[in-house]
Amino acid sequence: MGGDHGPRVTLPACRQFLDNHPDARILLVGLPQALEGFTHERATVVAASEVVAMDDPVEVALRKKKDSSMRVAIQQVKDGQAAAAVSAGNTGALMAIARYLLKTLDGIDRPAIATQMPNAAGGATTVLDLGANVDCSAEHLLQFAVMGSALVSALREQGDPTVGLLNIGEEVIKGNEVIKKAGELLRSAANSGDLNFYGNVEGNDIFKGTVDIVVCDGFVGNVALKASEGVASMIVGALKQEFGRGIFTKMAAIVAYPVLKALMKKMDYRRYNGAALLGLRGLVFKSHGSADVLAFEQALNRAYDAARNNLLDRVRTRIAHAAPLLAPADAQPTPGAAAPAIE
Amino acid sequence: MGGDHGPRVTLPACRQFLDNHPDARILLVGLPQALEGFTHERATVVAASEVVAMDDPVEVALRKKKDSSMRVAIQQVKDGQAAAAVSAGNTGALMAIARYLLKTLDGIDRPAIATQMPNAAGGATTVLDLGANVDCSAEHLLQFAVMGSALVSALREQGDPTVGLLNIGEEVIKGNEVIKKAGELLRSAANSGDLNFYGNVEGNDIFKGTVDIVVCDGFVGNVALKASEGVASMIVGALKQEFGRGIFTKMAAIVAYPVLKALMKKMDYRRYNGAALLGLRGLVFKSHGSADVLAFEQALNRAYDAARNNLLDRVRTRIAHAAPLLAPADAQPTPGAAAPAIE
Repeated sequence: MGGDHGPRVTLPACRQFLDNHPDARILLVGLPQALEGFTHERATVVAASEVVAMDDPVEVALRKKKDSSMRVAIQQVKDGQAAAAVSAGNTGALMAIARYLLKTLDGIDRPAIATQMPNAAGGATTVLDLGANVDCSAEHLLQFAVMGSALVSALREQGDPTVGLLNIGEEVIKGNEVIKKAGELLRSAANSGDLNFYGNVEGNDIFKGTVDIVVCDGFVGNVALKASEGVASMIVGALKQEFGRGIFTKMAAIVAYPVLKALMKKMDYRRYNGAALLGLRGLVFKSHGSADVLAFEQALNRAYDAARNNLLDRVRTRIAHAAPLLAPADAQPTPGAAAPAIE
Repeated sequence: MGGDHGPRVTLPACRQFLDNHPDARILLVGLPQALEGFTHERATVVAASEVVAMDDPVEVALRKKKDSSMRVAIQQVKDGQAAAAVSAGNTGALMAIARYLLKTLDGIDRPAIATQMPNAAGGATTVLDLGANVDCSAEHLLQFAVMGSALVSALREQGDPTVGLLNIGEEVIKGNEVIKKAGELLRSAANSGDLNFYGNVEGNDIFKGTVDIVVCDGFVGNVALKASEGVASMIVGALKQEFGRGIFTKMAAIVAYPVLKALMKKMDYRRYNGAALLGLRGLVFKSHGSADVLAFEQALNRAYDAARNNLLDRVRTRIAHAAPLLAPADAQPTPGAAAPAIE
């Protein structure tokens, strides 16, 4: 039901997904009248009488809308009816409801949001946290590193992905107190075989592809993600403007079009859609609210791969192994934990 | 002496600068043998026997190299011989020496590094802090806002520039505790006429040009800057790769070349070179270490404009006016304060 476009985008994406995965089944959760037009032998409608709005406060989503499509979908995961839930809706509400219904895994204080960004090495860099947690401690950053490693292992079938700690310089002495302590914890985890820790990385390393996973506080990750989107938009806008400036440049645009199209495809954020909510006792994926059919299908693919490759068990195993390093990081509630992250 | 290229870049830049500003004079500070080839009626060599290396630890620069070109140059500012100092050298050393020799202005706890980034509105957004301070308090962010306003007023002769607080959402309730408190302080400053506070902005607003000045913790600013540079490099690299892929695309590149060149010019980071070290009792500007002649000349221009438009007095006046809001933010030393910022 969610996202900027609702079933107009999510239903065609589900059909494409089902066509591409003959062994997959989908539970379509939402208002029956909005979903009844969709028929497929491997799709079943699960009715929900309410919808969380994109601008609903978390409290409203959590306490007032107890029969929302979002909540009913996550309940399917909790009840074992679904292997994973995917939503394009309100990020803050999704995280709050998922956390409330599913609870966190043993050894995890706070769930994190992990997404992928394209890099110059031709692959994708997984970055977490993207805004679920502000004011992270060093222990939280270690938990993110362990969870991120499990995610990349599961989605890319890559055994020992490299982890970088986002900092303002490569040297060990750089950064604030939390980051320095996190560096020590990550080095310990590397020594005990729990992580493949590369060391400190800087903002540009996300896009260089220096490491498979970049770990950061949610505030920092959110700003970095949005700043990056801002630069990309500015460059694309300037390209369009320059090519549209006169007759000659318009002709140049026609000639250059296939090249620019290939470039856009390579940079296409839609291919990387589908952020994982990690650290919960169940799989939940968040699609960008503005996702189109292709992008939403990517989020479905990601959830499917995570379920098929036992992401949850991988996270559990890795966390259990790293348990001696993972002393509880905090007991107090997280201020701003419910802040929407990727909209 | 500093930067990746030293006098090979700085001397030609100085000549261009002098040619473009008939009323300007330059003190060239450094090893006499490196500077003696440069003669100009408005240039004077001031000898220094040492040079701070790009990788010298701050302690070495500060305590061992007491006759470094960097230190002698800043001493010229302190002694009133120079209106401003410009360096392309080691950022951490420059900040530490400037702070040690010049001291901070009354009401300022920590100097900040302010730079400009191009935006889609066709102008530049001034962002501070860029890495001089990690672990900033709300009071520090208010000081940055006041100093940034003075800088933009002085450099662009714009009376009442708008200030945005970098956050993970526009709403007042977003962010961590420091950011929420900073938002309150900035609103108070707006009410008392000390600031033109726009409200919270997000990472992409830096490049949209939503506000004239974006205020943030140095850790966050540094990551955002470097992530942005990373995206821009990735896109430029991909453009080159796509256009170089085959004969047809190489032809397309020739046709598209003037358009791409215009784009690169618009996005050219060199045009925005010259970061201000704000909050000191003297003007100091930092050029990017990799600056070429054009870029280094921009840094000289910026220092010249700041001196001519009395940046120091403007900062003093604004800080004094905002004094009731600017209770000392901290007394303890800043961990990581000497971390190089823009290299």
